Amino acid sequence: MDAPIALFDSGLGGLTVLKSLALELPHENFIYIGDTARLPYGNKSPQTIRRYSEEILSYFKRHYAPKAVVIACNSASSHWPEPLWQGLHVFNVIDPGAEAALAATQNGRIGVLGTRATIESGVYRDRILQRANARGRSIEYFGQACPLLVPLAEEGWIDDPITNLVTHRYVQPLVQQNIDTLVLGCTHYPILINAIRRTTGLNIHLVEAGHTLAQALIAAPEVPMRPTTGESGYVKVMLTDTSERSKILSYELLKPIELDEYSLVNLGA
Amino acid sequence: MDAPIALFDSGLGGLTVLKSLALELPHENFIYIGDTARLPYGNKSPQTIRRYSEEILSYFKRHYAPKAVVIACNSASSHWPEPLWQGLHVFNVIDPGAEAALAATQNGRIGVLGTRATIESGVYRDRILQRANARGRSIEYFGQACPLLVPLAEEGWIDDPITNLVTHRYVQPLVQQNIDTLVLGCTHYPILINAIRRTTGLNIHLVEAGHTLAQALIAAPEVPMRPTTGESGYVKVMLTDTSERSKILSYELLKPIELDEYSLVNLGA
Repeated sequence: MDAPIALFDSGLGGLTVLKSLALELPHENFIYIGDTARLPYGNKSPQTIRRYSEEILSYFKRHYAPKAVVIACNSASSHWPEPLWQGLHVFNVIDPGAEAALAATQNGRIGVLGTRATIESGVYRDRILQRANARGRSIEYFGQACPLLVPLAEEGWIDDPITNLVTHRYVQPLVQQNIDTLVLGCTHYPILINAIRRTTGLNIHLVEAGHTLAQALIAAPEVPMRPTTGESGYVKVMLTDTSERSKILSYELLKPIELDEYSLVNLGA
Repeated sequence: MDAPIALFDSGLGGLTVLKSLALELPHENFIYIGDTARLPYGNKSPQTIRRYSEEILSYFKRHYAPKAVVIACNSASSHWPEPLWQGLHVFNVIDPGAEAALAATQNGRIGVLGTRATIESGVYRDRILQRANARGRSIEYFGQACPLLVPLAEEGWIDDPITNLVTHRYVQPLVQQNIDTLVLGCTHYPILINAIRRTTGLNIHLVEAGHTLAQALIAAPEVPMRPTTGESGYVKVMLTDTSERSKILSYELLKPIELDEYSLVNLGA
């Protein structure tokens, strides 16, 4: 029960998922690995992405025996079908997003923002439509690749007229399609949620991986939660390559969550 | 003499250098390799970048015996000091840029735009200042990392108010430093030269790798040029990973140069 919940991503974007989980599940222990030495995963082959993911899961297993592993990376999530791997319970960011979008939409028109790789893979479209078909629902899907949003978030231009213009250009075509639900299909995008809100207004439901994942973890009988009356848990972040900039960014992205440990990790250890 | 001039880059950015060389040296034969399967190089270790470069040089040597190899990539250039490797004459994009900047400046104030990796490595600063010291000149260097320019160029937002705003934010601080010379220290940036010009005006000298490289090749006695009276040369582009998008982009970036061949290459062959 005290075993940590482990997360990983190719870089720092997954810290938005960690922050969200740590805020919603403050009594849990969390460890996070950002594979910054090998980012980005998005443009690599499925075989390579799979191998990297296995190396990280295997590291988690040897050193932490986590009660759950969250793949906080869309690219890695789309190449990892099994919910159980060598005794580890594995969650991804795509299925809860697809599920939450279906639960939220009323008019059946769902938009998804993602990196070019995620949108071109069609993974959100497929998982949303499969679920919809199984329930006899008719859904219209609208995908939008947003290659500039990750660089803007990493540049730190968060509350910025340029970012507002760029997000408007990406999001407005979806708004014109009369969507009522919009999935933030990249772990960096919650950083830009205020800019995205400027275009969507308040009537479009925004779906973030972090919130829906917390619900999925609470609902999973195989993941026993710590008592919510006891002390709060720890939060540890490890990166495979680190710099002054990635350290500052890690602390920034997690605020108001405080880090108990920030370190360099050697996955071969 | 008929042997081709070979260029390589981690991706498509180096095609701006190829275009520039092909325009200035229309009678030469050119081959280009874009290592799109392993891009970007900028965030990889010097050892890895060196190994990738050796693989490509070795491929060129086995299949084409080029009379010159141009490293049309700033990251790979900064980790390749030797002008001669296994009988190949190797040119990079940094030295000609540093040289041209020194030749152009009158007030001794030089700005450099580059990716974060290039600017943080200080490679332009070092090579400009070394040359300046050797000639007893005093130079002020101003570097500016521009992480959004490559994504903007790749998104195709070339003649675009958003791009004008972003370049203004990056370039204006250098203009305020009263620079009279600005080095475009990334092979993607010539694509955005009109946007950059909007901020610099016409009184700041812009230094592009392509033009200065053509002069360096012409001046190199070890690289015999083809007669400028005969037929024009061929232009072949090979990528290590290809998609519909990279094909369209390759043809776009080279206009008005026409491609004689576009293909996928296996570096192990």
